[in-house]
Amino acid sequence: MRSVDRLISALKRLPGIGPKQAERLSLHLLRAPRAEAENLAEALLEAKDAMRFCARCGDFTDKELCGLCGDPSRDQALLCVVEEPQDVAAFERSRAFKGLYHVLHGSLSPLDGIGPERIKVRELLERLKSAPGVVREVVVATDPDTEGEATALYLGQVLKPFAVKVTRIAHGVPMGGDLDYMDERTLSCALTGRREL
Amino acid sequence: MRSVDRLISALKRLPGIGPKQAERLSLHLLRAPRAEAENLAEALLEAKDAMRFCARCGDFTDKELCGLCGDPSRDQALLCVVEEPQDVAAFERSRAFKGLYHVLHGSLSPLDGIGPERIKVRELLERLKSAPGVVREVVVATDPDTEGEATALYLGQVLKPFAVKVTRIAHGVPMGGDLDYMDERTLSCALTGRREL
Repeated sequence: MRSVDRLISALKRLPGIGPKQAERLSLHLLRAPRAEAENLAEALLEAKDAMRFCARCGDFTDKELCGLCGDPSRDQALLCVVEEPQDVAAFERSRAFKGLYHVLHGSLSPLDGIGPERIKVRELLERLKSAPGVVREVVVATDPDTEGEATALYLGQVLKPFAVKVTRIAHGVPMGGDLDYMDERTLSCALTGRREL
Repeated sequence: MRSVDRLISALKRLPGIGPKQAERLSLHLLRAPRAEAENLAEALLEAKDAMRFCARCGDFTDKELCGLCGDPSRDQALLCVVEEPQDVAAFERSRAFKGLYHVLHGSLSPLDGIGPERIKVRELLERLKSAPGVVREVVVATDPDTEGEATALYLGQVLKPFAVKVTRIAHGVPMGGDLDYMDERTLSCALTGRREL
């Protein structure tokens, strides 16, 4: 096997990278300066070795606690529950949320055999128990798909015994979106959730 | 900068990888077994170090001559001229061509200042000169776009002094394609190039 074919097959194994894109990427990497290839290989192994999950929220971090959990200026009373670390990154980019996060690392999917024990629900409940009264609102920001909605409903149930307000992010038409291109469920959610101006 | 952010930014620099896909890829790599990350990093550096261009055809190879140029069972009289190494891979997958290749590593694009001296035209002419009479047909298989067509016309000119037949791959509707979705130029080419059944 030529070394370029080994590289192509390693790239093809990545999610969302098809055979054509793997070829194009490897061609790019072989033509780029060696420093760029080295940088990518090093970043990959360094991240692989250094990264772990924050002991509190489950986001990626290089330390015991992530930067957000260790930041006293964040609102400790607000907890946003998301499915994946990239959701934390997305909310942080929006600068719209000043509280803390909890990453479930997945969503409930009974058909795939993914029950509450497979995602970090227990950790969420323990977090609330370990510091009673600190968190006053849990914002459930799981994805607006079947699994995310099921997870939101489930969290609503298990969070009932706690003295916290449980909210769900709003569903509706995305900003900048074109109404013509929205599916019926989104339009229906946008109508149901309408607010007075 | 967290190590995961360094990885994301290294991935984002690759062609066709947007910020979202870079996030998804790094998440996948961080969750995958370390062996997978190691395999990719090693494949990348190994390819970077081992790969060079075949001294004859310009395709990627680990050796002085690529496997195709060194294979005596390939038809030495047929030479297929392509723009990029991935075009060689594409033709080889089709199993439709039994001759040898010549990789130009680009196409003519006067607007971008890419003239014949920037692509491997000189190497092609020298290859024909160095073994007169061996190659009997040059199949110009540059892309069916403006640059590829310009390159094909140019090659037709410069190959005139040689005693070789110069042919161009057929243009037409792609197999499995839907006529409704074809652009007018493709349909017009498909009509002009029609053959008796």
